[in-house]
Amino acid sequence: MKLYDCHIAPNPRRARMFLAEKGIELETIEIDILAGENLKVDFLAINSSGLLPVLELDDGTRIDETMAICHYFEELQPDPPLLGRDPREKAIIISRQRKMEFDGMISSSEVFRNQHENFTQRSIPGGGEDVIPAIPALVTRGQQTLDRFFQRLELYLSETPYTAGDQFSMVDITAICAIDFAGWSDILIPETNTHTKAWYEKISARPSVDA
Amino acid sequence: MKLYDCHIAPNPRRARMFLAEKGIELETIEIDILAGENLKVDFLAINSSGLLPVLELDDGTRIDETMAICHYFEELQPDPPLLGRDPREKAIIISRQRKMEFDGMISSSEVFRNQHENFTQRSIPGGGEDVIPAIPALVTRGQQTLDRFFQRLELYLSETPYTAGDQFSMVDITAICAIDFAGWSDILIPETNTHTKAWYEKISARPSVDA
Repeated sequence: MKLYDCHIAPNPRRARMFLAEKGIELETIEIDILAGENLKVDFLAINSSGLLPVLELDDGTRIDETMAICHYFEELQPDPPLLGRDPREKAIIISRQRKMEFDGMISSSEVFRNQHENFTQRSIPGGGEDVIPAIPALVTRGQQTLDRFFQRLELYLSETPYTAGDQFSMVDITAICAIDFAGWSDILIPETNTHTKAWYEKISARPSVDA
Repeated sequence: MKLYDCHIAPNPRRARMFLAEKGIELETIEIDILAGENLKVDFLAINSSGLLPVLELDDGTRIDETMAICHYFEELQPDPPLLGRDPREKAIIISRQRKMEFDGMISSSEVFRNQHENFTQRSIPGGGEDVIPAIPALVTRGQQTLDRFFQRLELYLSETPYTAGDQFSMVDITAICAIDFAGWSDILIPETNTHTKAWYEKISARPSVDA
């Protein structure tokens, strides 16, 4: 089993944090997205979308979505639980993870890509032969949805010590990776969001953040 | 337990199809999105994002993402399995479901909303007080990612009778709901996608499509 990885990219970081919290070590193969290695023929043969991370099982099956990879390892090794311990908690974590992903990760990506000189013809992450021009209005829209992300995160953390209750979970992983990704565009936790700032310090002390 | 529902909306339809395939009947409360009921104070008290569907458990917990609702019922009643039977199959289904959702459902939404007179100030589904103007360039981008959706779907169906193997799954549900949603913008299955067209006929014969 091995993981096609990219050290600087936000989604592979989510997978690596998840694995580090589980104490799972995998063979990794670094793909250099700055050099465009993910869009070259060798990697497109592994994942036609050009996206990372990709988990390759020993039977050759390839799993190419971060959340699918995380669910796979949660099934293989339930402890520590990062995706919930019972049906209700699992549902809450899936729901909140999606909020953090859509309003956080994806908004950060929209803001970053649609104003960056490297992506003027690639508004959407990954490959494909089509030219998809950058859309500057998505920078503004992304900033607005990031406002919602930060509001929601502050609300969660005003109620419980972690984003989905009393225990660290995948929701915390996606949230901190989204915040750090927003930081690439100089968008920071609002000063008044005191619960979020305290939580950020706490999560940043976990060894997995450097995975 | 009850489901806040909206008969005409694509995401509630995914949840209803899932429940129908499981043979689960729930009390439903219809929310009239054409009348803007989802954005009024009563419903925003139930779900501050204004989105549907929402599952309300007997303890008052509300689960407000389609996939979270589906995973909840898969845990409660595993048969028939719609989200996979073992870790590998579950991971494949989660991954493919996301492809169908992102490139299919979300692209259909971008194409539809960003050119419709009702959404000139609401480029993003759901509530929030911010004005988020429609972005006409997303109509073109959405059409391009729908091209990818149809290509990928045809590839899946050239290999197996259903979108994730030999059995009907959540991937089929999301795929057919995305196709019908694309149809709102007069985007149809390409004539040359013969596997997809045959599969569409087969899935359309299941009683759950009318749930």
